[in-house]
Amino acid sequence: MKVMVSINLKPGVLDPQARAIENSLSSLGYTEVSGVSTGKQIILDLDETDESRARQKTAKMCETLLVNTVIENYDITIMDEDS
Amino acid sequence: MKVMVSINLKPGVLDPQARAIENSLSSLGYTEVSGVSTGKQIILDLDETDESRARQKTAKMCETLLVNTVIENYDITIMDEDS
Repeated sequence: MKVMVSINLKPGVLDPQARAIENSLSSLGYTEVSGVSTGKQIILDLDETDESRARQKTAKMCETLLVNTVIENYDITIMDEDS
Repeated sequence: MKVMVSINLKPGVLDPQARAIENSLSSLGYTEVSGVSTGKQIILDLDETDESRARQKTAKMCETLLVNTVIENYDITIMDEDS
């Protein structure tokens, strides 16, 4: 089962990469962009067929390793139910 | 309109960050993880109400700035139709 973890900065945390993108887009003439934010994706192949168990395990991995919960939020999406 | 750009490495391109995550998860005892891949998310606030125009403009931004099309694939998702 493929599980996608989307990791985004919590509101209020500075995002210099997003500011850099915003400035670059604006200097390239893309003035219709009024805001940018960035995030990470981690896609895991899990040997697990039960969706709720997969979610639980992934959440545990996020809390222990993948996510800095002080400054980041995460969101778990099941990508398919194969295997 | 919020548009999400998901950027992933093309197949065959080395992903050392993913290998590091895989090794760390395995040494933490999460042996059910059989594969890891990583990617980036860029979320744009566009002053644009037409979905197909928003997609077109975002694709142009991806090709000119956001994505290294030599080694990366991208995928555009419209997140909402508000504003």
